[in-house]
Amino acid sequence: MNIKIVIEYDGADFYGWQRQPNLRTVQGEIVKCLSALAGHEILIDGSGRTDGGVHAYGQVATFNWTGKIPADKLQYVMNHRLPKDIYITSLEEVDTDFHARFSACGKCYTYKLYKSDRPKPLKRRHAYRVPKTINVSDMKEAAAHVVGEHDFKSFMASGSFVTDTVRTIYKVTVDEVGDEIHLRFYGNGFLYNMVRILTGMLVDIGTGIKRPDLVPHIIESKDRTLVEHTAAAEGLYLTEVYYNKETLERALKSSE
Amino acid sequence: MNIKIVIEYDGADFYGWQRQPNLRTVQGEIVKCLSALAGHEILIDGSGRTDGGVHAYGQVATFNWTGKIPADKLQYVMNHRLPKDIYITSLEEVDTDFHARFSACGKCYTYKLYKSDRPKPLKRRHAYRVPKTINVSDMKEAAAHVVGEHDFKSFMASGSFVTDTVRTIYKVTVDEVGDEIHLRFYGNGFLYNMVRILTGMLVDIGTGIKRPDLVPHIIESKDRTLVEHTAAAEGLYLTEVYYNKETLERALKSSE
Repeated sequence: MNIKIVIEYDGADFYGWQRQPNLRTVQGEIVKCLSALAGHEILIDGSGRTDGGVHAYGQVATFNWTGKIPADKLQYVMNHRLPKDIYITSLEEVDTDFHARFSACGKCYTYKLYKSDRPKPLKRRHAYRVPKTINVSDMKEAAAHVVGEHDFKSFMASGSFVTDTVRTIYKVTVDEVGDEIHLRFYGNGFLYNMVRILTGMLVDIGTGIKRPDLVPHIIESKDRTLVEHTAAAEGLYLTEVYYNKETLERALKSSE
Repeated sequence: MNIKIVIEYDGADFYGWQRQPNLRTVQGEIVKCLSALAGHEILIDGSGRTDGGVHAYGQVATFNWTGKIPADKLQYVMNHRLPKDIYITSLEEVDTDFHARFSACGKCYTYKLYKSDRPKPLKRRHAYRVPKTINVSDMKEAAAHVVGEHDFKSFMASGSFVTDTVRTIYKVTVDEVGDEIHLRFYGNGFLYNMVRILTGMLVDIGTGIKRPDLVPHIIESKDRTLVEHTAAAEGLYLTEVYYNKETLERALKSSE
C-alpha cells in the first residue's frame, strides 16, 4: 500500500533529513518508527533533503506500507510513538506510481529573519538576525528580479554536481510580521542551498551592501562568487510541496 | 564592585536557573563564565529561581565583581563567552546594598499559550497548547478576579514551605497575538509555581471546565486541590523585575 505523509518538524536537534548511521535525523526517526510498527524494515522517500537545523511545516514522504496496522490508524499510532519534534500532519493512501520526490511539481520555502541589534536566545534556532535598519522595500525590488525562469547557477552551493541549473521561481513574497521579515519562495524546484543563498543576497541588498538592480547581472553571470552570503540553516522552513497545478496556483493566489 | 546584570535566556536546554552539580543550569553557566574571566570563583544571586524549561526576557542577578576586566567591557566579554542560549542584555554598577532578590518590589511574568487542535513541533518548547475553541472573554473575566491582595495559598505548589502566602497582583492582561494568547501577570511577588497554576486555572475556565465566577471561591478556600491543572514550564517567561515604584508603574501603564 503506497502511503503519503506530510511532516512538520523542528530541525534544531536533527542532523538534517537524510538517514545517517549514528546521527539523529528526521528520516532516520520515521524509518525507525515505521519499522518498529511493521516488525520489518520500512524505508521512506522524502520530497528532498533538508540540512541540519532546517525546519519543515510540510515535508512530504512516501513509503510502501506492509505492516498490519490499518492505514486509517497509522497516523495516530505514529504520532504517539514519534519524538515530539516530529509530527505527521496528514497520512493517506495514494496511487502506486505516486512518489514524494518525482511526482512533485513545485515547492514553497519560507525564510524567517528577525530584526535586532543583538542576538536573541529565544529566536536563535528559528530565525536569522538582520539589522533593525534593514531596507525592506529594496529587498522587495530585488526579489521581483528573481521571479521567472533563470539559470540559477550563481545560487547553487559549490560542491553540488547538478548539471541542469535552470529553475522557475513563480513568486517571492516579502512580509513584515512584527519584528520579523518572512520571505516566501515558490518555485518548480530549488538547487542545493539556493533559498539560503537567495536570502543571503536579499539581506545584503537590504543592508545596502548590494544594490537591487544588481540582481539580473548576478543571475546572468552564473558566478557563485558574486553572492558570498549564505543565510543560516536555522531560518529556513520547507513549507509546502505541490503535486498538481491546481494546489500550486491556489497557494500562489492565497499568498497575494 | 557590585554589578547588576539583566539576562535573557531560552530555558529549553537548562535544568532551570539554580546551580546544581553536574547539571546544565543558567546560574551555573554564568558562574562558570565569570569565574573563568576573574580567575577565581564569582558567585551570583538571582532575583528568583526558574524551573527547567522556563525562559526569561529579564531575569536579574547581582554579584561582587573582583576581576580585572573593567565593568564597561564586562558585558561584551561575557556575551562572547556565554553559550548562545544566554544573553546579557544590560550590565551596570549598582550601590553596594542593591540585591537582585531583596531589592525587588515587583515582577512581571508572561505565559504564552497557542491555539491548535494538535501539537506543533515548532512551538513545543516555547508555548503551551490549548484548544482552538478556547473562550478568551471568560479568561479575561476570571483574570480580573485574581487582581488585588489575596492569600494565594490555593495557587502554591505542594511541597513549598513558605508561610506567608499573601501576595498582591497588580494586573493581569490577556492578549490574542495571531494564534497565541499571551497572559501577563504583574505582582509584588509570586509563590512557587503560582503563575503556572493561575494559568492552568484560566485555561480550565477558557475551556469551560470551570466557571469564571468560581475564582473568588477558589482563592478564599485556600485549597490547592481545587486547581488541579498546572500549565507546563515551557510556556512561562520571567519578563521583568522591578526595583522601584516608578518603573513598575510605567510598565503597568504601558501595558494598557
